[in-house]
Amino acid sequence: MKKQKLHIIKIGGNVINNEELLTSFLNDFSELEGLKILVHGGGNKATEMAAKLGLKSKMINGRRVTDKANLEVVTMVYAGLLNKKITAQLQQNNCNAIGLSGADANCVLAHKRIVKDIDYGFAGDIDTVNSQNIKLFLQNNITPVFCAITHNKKGQLLNTNADTIASEIAIALSSTFTIELNYVFELKGVLNNIKDKSSVIKHVNLREYEQFVAEGVISEGMIPKLHNCFEALKKGVQKVKIGDTSLIHNKTNLYTTLSLK
Amino acid sequence: MKKQKLHIIKIGGNVINNEELLTSFLNDFSELEGLKILVHGGGNKATEMAAKLGLKSKMINGRRVTDKANLEVVTMVYAGLLNKKITAQLQQNNCNAIGLSGADANCVLAHKRIVKDIDYGFAGDIDTVNSQNIKLFLQNNITPVFCAITHNKKGQLLNTNADTIASEIAIALSSTFTIELNYVFELKGVLNNIKDKSSVIKHVNLREYEQFVAEGVISEGMIPKLHNCFEALKKGVQKVKIGDTSLIHNKTNLYTTLSLK
Repeated sequence: MKKQKLHIIKIGGNVINNEELLTSFLNDFSELEGLKILVHGGGNKATEMAAKLGLKSKMINGRRVTDKANLEVVTMVYAGLLNKKITAQLQQNNCNAIGLSGADANCVLAHKRIVKDIDYGFAGDIDTVNSQNIKLFLQNNITPVFCAITHNKKGQLLNTNADTIASEIAIALSSTFTIELNYVFELKGVLNNIKDKSSVIKHVNLREYEQFVAEGVISEGMIPKLHNCFEALKKGVQKVKIGDTSLIHNKTNLYTTLSLK
Repeated sequence: MKKQKLHIIKIGGNVINNEELLTSFLNDFSELEGLKILVHGGGNKATEMAAKLGLKSKMINGRRVTDKANLEVVTMVYAGLLNKKITAQLQQNNCNAIGLSGADANCVLAHKRIVKDIDYGFAGDIDTVNSQNIKLFLQNNITPVFCAITHNKKGQLLNTNADTIASEIAIALSSTFTIELNYVFELKGVLNNIKDKSSVIKHVNLREYEQFVAEGVISEGMIPKLHNCFEALKKGVQKVKIGDTSLIHNKTNLYTTLSLK
């Protein structure tokens, strides 16, 4: 039997931070036909909120160090403010969205990151995606909208990288669906020259990716994103694209497609 | 065909505010057999958070006046912090909880309260409960946990009284299930003498309720709660009880049962 298609889209901070861009993206997302899942990052709202509350936001290698107070902030901002705002906007567009953290219906289980050199605090590394409940929602025309919060099934919420949540969900569902995974962010794709935003590399395979990393063509922040993409491809996801919001609905042909070969 | 039983429990601020009491309640709730739904209020965390952010919390007749900034705070605190904390704790107890606002899966639709004498801002009065998706969760062994946020299907989130959410959900599901609705709060039930916490009236019927209101036996804050209870009974809910956390699991026989006759 031919597998049904499923479109998983992760939107990054720049889309979240810009109200107009977010609304326009959510309109496009609502119009996408077929099964779909949205995963959203946090943007700068958590840092703003932490600052208002007199807390310091500490970032190491682009990842937030999440102490107890900052975990409360990201839980409020990601799972509360942003997730419900996005859900309400999608509902307005007749997209039957359900906002979820990984704790809800036990969808995404993680463990607190093991401390090696750096203690990231309540940061979660994913163990399992509970695909059964996610499938239940999809089969009933409900569109899951995941924020970057997971749990450890021992009562602890954990701040978890949204790129990784998107790829792990895609992998877990790849035995049931033919999946296209899209990473939507501020650039039009993977750049050959970081100073030239139009220097999009239209296609990157695994060998080229490894070469780009070795040669330093790909910048530091891009490496974990591409790592997630290739993990997804290795583990059964059919198609991965990286680009800006115009990627949705094929409004552009300028984006990066990734493949193993 | 005999209807299945469904237990709907609303917990108020005092349970939310006391970490030990909340954990103990959630343990009891997890052990309840059969279908169940939890509805939670906000407690004093929203007022605390608003104060930390330099916002004033204005209450009129015990209800929050919700301007745009305070709506952000209650969305963060109710739908984010508290809802996900409760969900993660229930998951720890192997209760397959899903945290929901009324926007999620379009479960609870409301409109912004019409301004008569008092402008409550972004306060929601409930129009419709979408029982189809709530039933889907229950049928799949998923326990809905509702916070006090709804939406208007036009992209607007609304702060909505949790007592009313509980009674409206109970009413909407009463054609499918035999429902017991419990209001759990700081007292052991409806008191005959507000100064004597043991003066619990064990049973109140509609005629007695109307008499108590006329005679001023029932205090101001209690009237809307009892109003919700009797609305539920009038519209098909089988059983309504009011009491403290010991009400669950029949740990006590000191509580108030309400009935029409």
